[in-house]
Formats: sequence, structure tokens, C-alpha cells
Amino acid sequence: ARDINLAVVAGDGIGTEVVEQGLLVLDAALSGSGVGVTTTDFDLGARRWHATGETLTDADLEAIRTHDAILLGAIGDPSVPSGVLERGLLLKLRFALDHYVNLRPGKLFPGVTSPLGNPGEVDFVVVREGTEGPYVGNGGAIRVGTPHEVANEVSVNTAFGVERVVRDAFARAAARPRKKLTLVHKHNVLVHAGHLWRRTVEAVNAEFPDVTVDYLHVDAATIFLVTNPSRFDVIVTDNLFGDILTDLAAAITGGIGLAASANINPDRTAPSMFEPVHGSAPDIAGQGKADPTATVLSVALLLDHLGLHTQARTVEDAVAADLAERGATARVRSTAEVGKDLAARVAG
Amino acid sequence: ARDINLAVVAGDGIGTEVVEQGLLVLDAALSGSGVGVTTTDFDLGARRWHATGETLTDADLEAIRTHDAILLGAIGDPSVPSGVLERGLLLKLRFALDHYVNLRPGKLFPGVTSPLGNPGEVDFVVVREGTEGPYVGNGGAIRVGTPHEVANEVSVNTAFGVERVVRDAFARAAARPRKKLTLVHKHNVLVHAGHLWRRTVEAVNAEFPDVTVDYLHVDAATIFLVTNPSRFDVIVTDNLFGDILTDLAAAITGGIGLAASANINPDRTAPSMFEPVHGSAPDIAGQGKADPTATVLSVALLLDHLGLHTQARTVEDAVAADLAERGATARVRSTAEVGKDLAARVAG
Ligand SMILES: CC(C)[C@H](C(=O)O)[C@@H](O)C(=O)O
Ligand SMILES: CC(C)[C@H](C(=O)O)[C@@H](O)C(=O)O
Repeated sequence: ARDINLAVVAGDGIGTEVVEQGLLVLDAALSGSGVGVTTTDFDLGARRWHATGETLTDADLEAIRTHDAILLGAIGDPSVPSGVLERGLLLKLRFALDHYVNLRPGKLFPGVTSPLGNPGEVDFVVVREGTEGPYVGNGGAIRVGTPHEVANEVSVNTAFGVERVVRDAFARAAARPRKKLTLVHKHNVLVHAGHLWRRTVEAVNAEFPDVTVDYLHVDAATIFLVTNPSRFDVIVTDNLFGDILTDLAAAITGGIGLAASANINPDRTAPSMFEPVHGSAPDIAGQGKADPTATVLSVALLLDHLGLHTQARTVEDAVAADLAERGATARVRSTAEVGKDLAARVAG
Repeated sequence: ARDINLAVVAGDGIGTEVVEQGLLVLDAALSGSGVGVTTTDFDLGARRWHATGETLTDADLEAIRTHDAILLGAIGDPSVPSGVLERGLLLKLRFALDHYVNLRPGKLFPGVTSPLGNPGEVDFVVVREGTEGPYVGNGGAIRVGTPHEVANEVSVNTAFGVERVVRDAFARAAARPRKKLTLVHKHNVLVHAGHLWRRTVEAVNAEFPDVTVDYLHVDAATIFLVTNPSRFDVIVTDNLFGDILTDLAAAITGGIGLAASANINPDRTAPSMFEPVHGSAPDIAGQGKADPTATVLSVALLLDHLGLHTQARTVEDAVAADLAERGATARVRSTAEVGKDLAARVAG
């Protein structure tokens, strides 16, 4: 078995802290498997931008491209103008590496407290489109700062882009016991984009006849996420709706401290990227307070993507066991302690 | 005191049922006040469209314009292609009558069950922009139905449009005990529109120095709505984010059966429109199962808009008392029974 050549973008704030624990658990998961890990650190984020004015250079991008996968902590700091690092670094990586499947599981692990009390079994996955929609940066403004300013944002949706992510979502739904796919959009208002999504889902359904499809407007979907989250199996949606729904999904399944994500290039023409859904959390950075669980679950998604399914399950099981015990003991642990405990469970 | 000249658009599905009760309560609230109500019914919605192909003609619109206010039930039916009635009727009314303040209270009344259990006092109001953003219908598609289709949706935001709704939101915040305004947007991705909103809020804050302002990305706002809804006082946001947040707000405060809304033209150059947030609910239409409370609370907003504040408070108090008792008795009542009970309470 070939070693994993991993690009590490720890990034800003708590990013460094959680990535360190993610790597610890990754090592533990691979120990004895014959597969090793080589990591290359990329100094990207607020510090680099302040020092050099650079967000992600062509050279960075080409260097990252040579890796098998990317582990990313968090990007962003209040000292950097809004949008600079998000669009110049994080979204640039997702777009340049064609991460068109942004995969975000919404799973309520036993023992985890939900703001919904006991909503029953919650175990869905959101397939968020990652390279189109209102995220394309296709906007602009005129007469900025005057009373006549007009600021536009263009959501771009293509048959090519929608079809490939919809097909991926159907394949995931077909592989799950319930085989259910929910399209979330707002086709009664965003008629052009919405109808493209709808027609595409109908068309691709023919290739997956055993998958049941339903549709929800994005506003209604938020209602069901709090009143009946068990109804969801696989959700497929656009980039912006997916952003919104997955934060809500994280909130109802125990918080963003537990929410994992994978930015996947299913065609494997570039490395996929694994990152917790949470941000850099500057308010608690450097204090050892961040929960590395979201990063560790992202490592499980990374292992799955690389075909190391046994190891992925081991990591997930370790998290499940840790969360179950956490509910029972309520002991407060530091970032490093949680990482150490998870690594120990993984090691067996 | 002049009579109220009310345009009634009962619309589709449960719209007719809930509007009937809304009018009953309105009558009860005005009895003895010296103010009467004259209603004109407008046959708009799915039935009319099937019969004539019309959604909202110029003649309809001009007739509606002569009224003091509009009470709307619900618009939409699965038999009509998605978008036809939404854009041709409901949104056309909001845009043509310049309803730039879409007001949606998020209040958890005592006795009402929330999926959040006991989240503490929840009493905020969302000021959703109503005439701009991704709702302008400024999109289009090319090569529709081919593998080369491109479907765009344009969010249009102007200094004029943003400033007027932001100023309205500040005025509302200034008049509330907590004096707090939260701007919700996604300015790290939608940088042009987002920065316009941000700059506008900063600028208008100078006119309302005693209002405290904070900012949340829309994804983070959904988290707080389920983990700490008490943190919100007044939220100001764009048309689409407002659509999403207010359904979520409804869900956490007892469901869309209770969620009122007002489409306000604060300059009074055209009648404002009052409607429950819920839709036409064809699955339960005609069965007397719909809760008219959202419509009745919308009637309270109507009374407030027309300066009949005492009557508005009486209606709200009746709803509060009814909801408190409802929690205690759990008796199932029909649409008409709830309306009758509310009217009786209002009558005193
Ligand atoms: C930081 C931001 C650009 C990003 C997004 O909107 O995609 C984040 O919210 C996420 O969900 O990964
Ligand atoms: C029916 C639809 C067009 C409408 C909207 O999106 O505004 C509805 O969801 C609402 O919130 O009033």
C-alpha cells in the first residue's frame, strides 16, 4: 500500500489546534495498516496574508495539487477584510480543485444533546453543490458608496454542474438503506435555476429507479430540520442553500464542534479536501477549548475517500464511543485531551 | 372615524378558511369603536388562473390600489406550474405596491410548545426586505433542456432599497426595550451585496445611536435561532435570507400555524398587505383543520398599521389567552371554532 501524501492547511485560529488532533488520530488509525502518511504544511490564511498580501498563489495551488488529499482546519480572522480569505483562499481551493460535491453528514450520535431534545434517529447527509450557484463570484457593483449604488450577485447554474452533483447524490442515496433523496431549492421564486435542478433530478432518477425523490422549498426544509429531522436521508441542494442548511443541521445534531465535511472531486482530477464545518473561532483560539471531533470525523471521511473504509469505521466508532461516554460523564477536556482519548480508542 | 376599505384576497386552499375567521375577529375588534369595515373580495389564485389564464391584471391591481389595506389568505396550488402564481400574483403584489418592509414577528407565546423545549423568552421581529434581492425576477436561462443549459439568477440590491428598509428596522429597534439590531447576510461570499448592506447599517446607525448593532452570517443565524433565539431583538435581512429565517423562526415559536406577517409600504403610497406566513396547504384544505391564528395575528398587524393600536393589542391578547388555554386543555378545535373563540375573547 502506498503512503498518503497529505497537504495540511491548518489555517487560522483554532484550525491549528484541531488539525493537530486530527493528524494524531489519523496516525493511530493507520498504524499497523502498512499505509503511512507524509504531511506537507501549507502556511495559508490570515498570518500569511498579513505578512505577504498573498492568499493562495499559483505555486501554492500547484504544490497542493500533487497531494492525495488536503486536511484543512479553519480559515478566517476578523483582522482580514471580509471575503478576502474566503474567496481568495477557501473558495478558490474548492473551485480550482473542482470540489463539486460538498458532503456534510447530519448525524445525531447517541449521548449527544440536541436542542431538539429527543428528535429520534437523525442520520442524513447533505450533498451541497460546491462549484456553482451564488458562490461563483459573479457579481459587481456600480456607484459604490453613493445613493445610487447597485450591487448585484449572480447565481450561475449549469446543466453540466447540476447533473454531476445530482448523480453523485443519487448514487449515495442508492447505497443507503432508505434510498431517499430530497431536492431542496426555491423553484417557485428562482424559477430558472430551480427548474434546471428539478428537471435534472427527474432525469437522473431514471438511472436510479429504486431511489424515492421528494422536493422541499428551502424555507420549508428549515422547518422540517427542526420538527422532523428523521425524515431526511440524502439532501441535494445548491451551494448557498447547502451552506445554510448544513449549519442548521450541525446545530440540531450537537453543534458545529461535531460537524464534519468533505469537499470532494469525485473524478479524482485533483485532491479532495476535508475540513470541519466550523470556522476559526478567534474568541477561543489558543486556549485548548476547541472540540477536535469535527476534524476527526472529517479524517474519517478522508479515509473513506481514499478507500480505507475499515480505518474510517474505526475512527467513527471511536468518536461514537467517546460521545456516548461524554454524555455520561460531562467531564470537560481540552482539545489535546479529546484528541489523545480518540487516538487511544482508535489504537484499540 | 373613517371606515376601513379592505381588499380581501382569500386565495387558494386553506386561504379562504383562515381569512373568514380573520374577518370575524376584525369585526369583533372594531365593534363599538365607530370604525367599520367594508370588504371587497378579489378572486385571485389558482381557480381564476385555470378559468381565465390570468394571475393579476392591471385592472385588478388598480382596483386593489384604492383600498386601505389587503388581507391575503394563501396563494398556490400544485395544479399550477411552480412560479406562475408566486411571481405573477403574490410577488407582483408585493413589488407593485412597494411592500419593502416584510415584517415577521417571531414570538413564543406562553403555553405554546416549541421543538426547542423551553428556550426562554423569544420575542423578536424580522424585517425582511421585500422588493429586491434574488426575488426581482432578474434571471434567465439559455439552451434550456440541453446539456449546455446555463440558468442564472441575479440578486439586485440598491442603496435606495437597502437604506429605506434598514432605516425602518432601526426605527423599530429604537422603539423596543432592548434596542438591538442584527444584520444577517453573507458578506464573506456575496461581497458586493453584503458590503452594501453592511455599509448602510453602519451609516444609518449614526441616526439611531442608542441602537446596538451586530452582524451574523445567515448560516450562523440559523444556529443561533435554535440554540439561543432569545439573543434576537430586531433582525434585518434581504428578501431570500428573510424568507428562510422566518420559516425557521415560525418553526421554533410553535409552527407556521401561528406565524403572522405584514407586507408594509411605510410611505403609504399604496395599501399594505397582511398575510399568514403559511401557504395554501392543499393537503388539509376544506377540512376545517387549518389554524386561523396566524391570520388573526396578521389582522393585529393590520390594525397596528392603520393606527388602531388599542384594537391590535386586544386581538393579540385574545390570541395569547387562547394559546395559553390551548396548552392546558389540548382540545382539538376546527378552524371556525378557533375563530369563534378568538372573536368572543376580543368582544370581551
Ligand atoms: C467561510 C465560508 C466561505 C464557508 C461557506 O460559505 O461555504 C463556510 O460557511 C462553510 O460552510 O464552509
Ligand atoms: C410563496 C413564496 C413566493 C413566498 C416567498 O418566498 O416569499 C413565501 O414563502 C413567503 O415567505 O411568503
